[in-house]
Amino acid sequence: MRFFSDNAAPVHPAVFAALEQANTLDTAYDGDGWSRQLDARFSDLFEADVRALWVPTGTSANCLALAALCPPHGAVVCHHDAHIQNDEGGAPGFYTHGAKLLLGEGEGAKLTPASIAAVLDPIRNDVHQLQAHAISITNATEYGCVYTPNEVAAIGHLARERRLGLHMDGARFANAVAHLGCTPADLTWRAGVDALSFGFVKNGGMSAEALVFFKPELAAATLYRRKRAGLLLSKGRYLAAQIHALLDHDLWLDNARASNAGATMLAKAAGERLVYPVEANEVFLRVTAAEAEKLRAKGFDFYDWGPGEARLVTSWDHQPDAIRPLAEAIAAL
Amino acid sequence: MRFFSDNAAPVHPAVFAALEQANTLDTAYDGDGWSRQLDARFSDLFEADVRALWVPTGTSANCLALAALCPPHGAVVCHHDAHIQNDEGGAPGFYTHGAKLLLGEGEGAKLTPASIAAVLDPIRNDVHQLQAHAISITNATEYGCVYTPNEVAAIGHLARERRLGLHMDGARFANAVAHLGCTPADLTWRAGVDALSFGFVKNGGMSAEALVFFKPELAAATLYRRKRAGLLLSKGRYLAAQIHALLDHDLWLDNARASNAGATMLAKAAGERLVYPVEANEVFLRVTAAEAEKLRAKGFDFYDWGPGEARLVTSWDHQPDAIRPLAEAIAAL
Amino acid sequence: MRFFSDNAAPVHPAVFAALEQANTLDTAYDGDGWSRQLDARFSDLFEADVRALWVPTGTSANCLALAALCPPHGAVVCHHDAHIQNDEGGAPGFYTHGAKLLLGEGEGAKLTPASIAAVLDPIRNDVHQLQAHAISITNATEYGCVYTPNEVAAIGHLARERRLGLHMDGARFANAVAHLGCTPADLTWRAGVDALSFGFVKNGGMSAEALVFFKPELAAATLYRRKRAGLLLSKGRYLAAQIHALLDHDLWLDNARASNAGATMLAKAAGERLVYPVEANEVFLRVTAAEAEKLRAKGFDFYDWGPGEARLVTSWDHQPDAIRPLAEAIAAL
Amino acid sequence: MRFFSDNAAPVHPAVFAALEQANTLDTAYDGDGWSRQLDARFSDLFEADVRALWVPTGTSANCLALAALCPPHGAVVCHHDAHIQNDEGGAPGFYTHGAKLLLGEGEGAKLTPASIAAVLDPIRNDVHQLQAHAISITNATEYGCVYTPNEVAAIGHLARERRLGLHMDGARFANAVAHLGCTPADLTWRAGVDALSFGFVKNGGMSAEALVFFKPELAAATLYRRKRAGLLLSKGRYLAAQIHALLDHDLWLDNARASNAGATMLAKAAGERLVYPVEANEVFLRVTAAEAEKLRAKGFDFYDWGPGEARLVTSWDHQPDAIRPLAEAIAAL
Repeated sequence: MRFFSDNAAPVHPAVFAALEQANTLDTAYDGDGWSRQLDARFSDLFEADVRALWVPTGTSANCLALAALCPPHGAVVCHHDAHIQNDEGGAPGFYTHGAKLLLGEGEGAKLTPASIAAVLDPIRNDVHQLQAHAISITNATEYGCVYTPNEVAAIGHLARERRLGLHMDGARFANAVAHLGCTPADLTWRAGVDALSFGFVKNGGMSAEALVFFKPELAAATLYRRKRAGLLLSKGRYLAAQIHALLDHDLWLDNARASNAGATMLAKAAGERLVYPVEANEVFLRVTAAEAEKLRAKGFDFYDWGPGEARLVTSWDHQPDAIRPLAEAIAAL
Repeated sequence: MRFFSDNAAPVHPAVFAALEQANTLDTAYDGDGWSRQLDARFSDLFEADVRALWVPTGTSANCLALAALCPPHGAVVCHHDAHIQNDEGGAPGFYTHGAKLLLGEGEGAKLTPASIAAVLDPIRNDVHQLQAHAISITNATEYGCVYTPNEVAAIGHLARERRLGLHMDGARFANAVAHLGCTPADLTWRAGVDALSFGFVKNGGMSAEALVFFKPELAAATLYRRKRAGLLLSKGRYLAAQIHALLDHDLWLDNARASNAGATMLAKAAGERLVYPVEANEVFLRVTAAEAEKLRAKGFDFYDWGPGEARLVTSWDHQPDAIRPLAEAIAAL
Repeated sequence: MRFFSDNAAPVHPAVFAALEQANTLDTAYDGDGWSRQLDARFSDLFEADVRALWVPTGTSANCLALAALCPPHGAVVCHHDAHIQNDEGGAPGFYTHGAKLLLGEGEGAKLTPASIAAVLDPIRNDVHQLQAHAISITNATEYGCVYTPNEVAAIGHLARERRLGLHMDGARFANAVAHLGCTPADLTWRAGVDALSFGFVKNGGMSAEALVFFKPELAAATLYRRKRAGLLLSKGRYLAAQIHALLDHDLWLDNARASNAGATMLAKAAGERLVYPVEANEVFLRVTAAEAEKLRAKGFDFYDWGPGEARLVTSWDHQPDAIRPLAEAIAAL
Repeated sequence: MRFFSDNAAPVHPAVFAALEQANTLDTAYDGDGWSRQLDARFSDLFEADVRALWVPTGTSANCLALAALCPPHGAVVCHHDAHIQNDEGGAPGFYTHGAKLLLGEGEGAKLTPASIAAVLDPIRNDVHQLQAHAISITNATEYGCVYTPNEVAAIGHLARERRLGLHMDGARFANAVAHLGCTPADLTWRAGVDALSFGFVKNGGMSAEALVFFKPELAAATLYRRKRAGLLLSKGRYLAAQIHALLDHDLWLDNARASNAGATMLAKAAGERLVYPVEANEVFLRVTAAEAEKLRAKGFDFYDWGPGEARLVTSWDHQPDAIRPLAEAIAAL
């Protein structure tokens, strides 16, 4: 049983059904009906006039957002454990034409107003030093922790004060919303977020993420940047259709609840072994190499996360019956 | 009936079947079985040791190839009607970090050794002028014309003499091979091609193109560039599987033959109206505005191509019965 | 006697005197007194509130201007014989992060509203094609021709209509103003110019050009870009002082008048041989190879300019006595 | 009396004399005699076949070197207090097209093999993480500390083992060599350095630094990059002449010894107040705000360096008589 990553999970049947429905002749690129409805669809979901673009990867969603918020000669504050810093192969540098990431601290990969200020305050206001233009936070974080609407709003407040844009990497946005039970609006634009990478691939999708701009004027240039980056698939309807399928009947939330529930079951079994509180679908365990080996011997696959830690990720398709044996194996360590 | 673009066509059932087969849990990115077999698969097809990467768009395939062949301070010779020049939103400039396209002439959007030399010869060999590092040709071209192996080899010879890389934009490579009846090897590396964008999306695929390097050493950095460009989809198996499905039993050739046949049928009906010889799946007609209107009134959709011309593109799913009414309407003009 | 380029001329004594005056301890970069006075100095000269930065080369002045007027995903219209197109080693692509130059036509390397419109009109207004964001003209042009204030204003009008920025490459701006006898304001912002590369190096300077923004808000980001491009010399006072010396007592105009006068003397001798009207300090002659050889045999050095043409450039230090022998030699051909 | 920076110091009379000697008509760009002799001149100095280019700033020398050693998709290890990290306005990101700086630790801004390995070892060897391609060290460092030839060689050894390029930012290379009494060769290529930014501006020059490549093959593309960056001044002889003047009769070493001597005199007065050993021309003092105020009241200007510290920089023109009053004032605190 694999607990490597929600990236490895299969595609939800409803997404497949949508692909088949889209399998007709339609206008190319984003001129088809599915694509043209995305603005309206996300405006409904977010209770505001937003712009939404499909892209094929979370990395491209994140980096198009950064490019919209930060000029090449600027910088973006993020956590030192952020995905954009560690796992995107330098894509932020590519998309922003060389802007820099400035690294902040915080438990569970969560920035705080204080940790952001600690990055910003030493920067001299002159041309010799890179000036920050934006902040990027991940929700749920790379360690499966969740910012509450209030926590985001505190960062949003700082961003406004310092005239910085605010981006949320929501590769696991669904897991965060499912955990909090709040509205998508409360966790984003009402808290000061300007752009959201809204993840679908880890949550039952195949190859489509959404980039949502809460300030519509930010979207215009991004349409050009998306094309220029080679991201404008010619049969875009197959991406848009995936997103519609996951939004229909709140399937995105159902899927997230399912994967969160799996992680919660593991968390209960893990008890004191937990490195971080489990608020989404990732579980970080303190385990010795021997203990990790024991779990693997029972057929459970996962990543070591530095010495003495293991990362287990649940996904939308993990049924309780599939999780239980791992939970028991952890409890038995 | 739409003859806008092969981009608009549906996805072939065999591709759908492959997606469903891939719909299981596997390693993320390009670590899955389908992706890992691409090198071998294309090495078989091309009778040589090649490297092959999936990417989601033809633009990204083209531009990763250009970035592999040309440094930021260099230039690439292409036809002034090339897709990379006119229809990729500046993606070559993005991927190469600002290298320049130098524009050559030629009938039917085909460069010749002479037209390439006419671009190269006036360049002073000093740092004030951009030096060419590569040539890019499109086969079949943007006007549906096909370079023969001999024609490519003549350009390949020039490229070697001038120490230039040679890229082939093969968005419609299948149509060219189907038309020529040659081997894929004869049309590419045996004729001096270093990198090929091998198109599948216009030919029955959904969202996967292949970038094939005939010099394996060119591929290594491209793996990093693909990730850095946000093109490394996390569920890459769904891209790789599409390509396998189209290669199986030469489906890619069957599809290309079908679309070529449709265009040939239209060409026969068009007679003297043809702007270019029809060698692939595109038909450019001389029509007055009134004639174009007449065709549209009968339910045929297509692009005007400048004043007095129309572009009709056939695709893999156009059955003779679907083509015939248009052929008759053209003949009746 | 060398007539290769005004680039090769020595530095004016007044500039040397200024360097010696600046040879004291002062604040680094552009914090010194000379640098801080540039805004005021150029605001006086241009009868408007302008921002002026020193840079070490015309190429960097031009390209910082383009970067201020055009985003990476945009394009700039210029003449196909423009310096930015042919002689800056791809610097526009570097500074703009890959924006494209779109090439227009016109006698004597002068664009016209009609030739610019001929470039702009075919561009589809979609993301697949690069949209123009700016126009760049050179005054005096690469062929020594001069745009009048009215001609610039006509282009400026078009630029406003199409919402494009307007840059003037004024490597030989002094020669143009000296020829026209107009005010600097009439030839620039009053005619719609947003940014001017104001050349001093070809006109008696050593290593300082000025970049003048007529819309002050364009300058702010350019200060960061100048630093980021490694152009912010630490002992900037030696650049600023050069500019002040050439502005003092209109030395820049005196120098330009001197070089223009030399060219005019040559033009009279050349008569029917002139390829272009001589309006600045460049003379393009029709000469056979044998004739060119004859001139060289008499000790005159110059560039061949394609087959059957020669380029002669005069400079601020060419006294009539130095020009006369060449004039006579040309007349004697 | 100003002790802000060696950047603020005047230009040495011998440099001025050289500028006057160069004030004749010669070939433009780097075609003149002075420029063409730089390779030979530095090859003599370094006892090896090297390539040397003038550039107008240390930032551009550093960043051209980084671009020669690291592709856009790579990374460079440097100290977190390195000038390229903190004071070049993001120029490394511009010149490398977005490569990243990876930050290491070490006393006095000196990296060690261990601190570099601590940066390198956690990097996974996959496309998701930026791979290091080079190391950059500063000698003398930003805190006025000096790497010995043995220390550089240890880092050079690591670089070879890991297949990384090695760059030395030698803005104060002269001060380091003067302090060590070693040969320039021992401190550079014999210790594994591939490229050196050899500073002249802080050491009596006006506007010229040298970029020296110890692997000649690295220089070729850099000639294009220098032009493309707008750094190829048209009257390059005025830059080359400065460098020749400072190399003549080892003036560069005399100047460095003079500024080092000034710092040593201050260091003796400072005693326990020194934050770092004084090995070049920078003195970092522990002083209270009141003490700093006291020094300023006596007419000494300098930078605060964070709370409780002050930075004093001596330069080539500081005579002992000019230093002594400050030394006495420090001793009297």
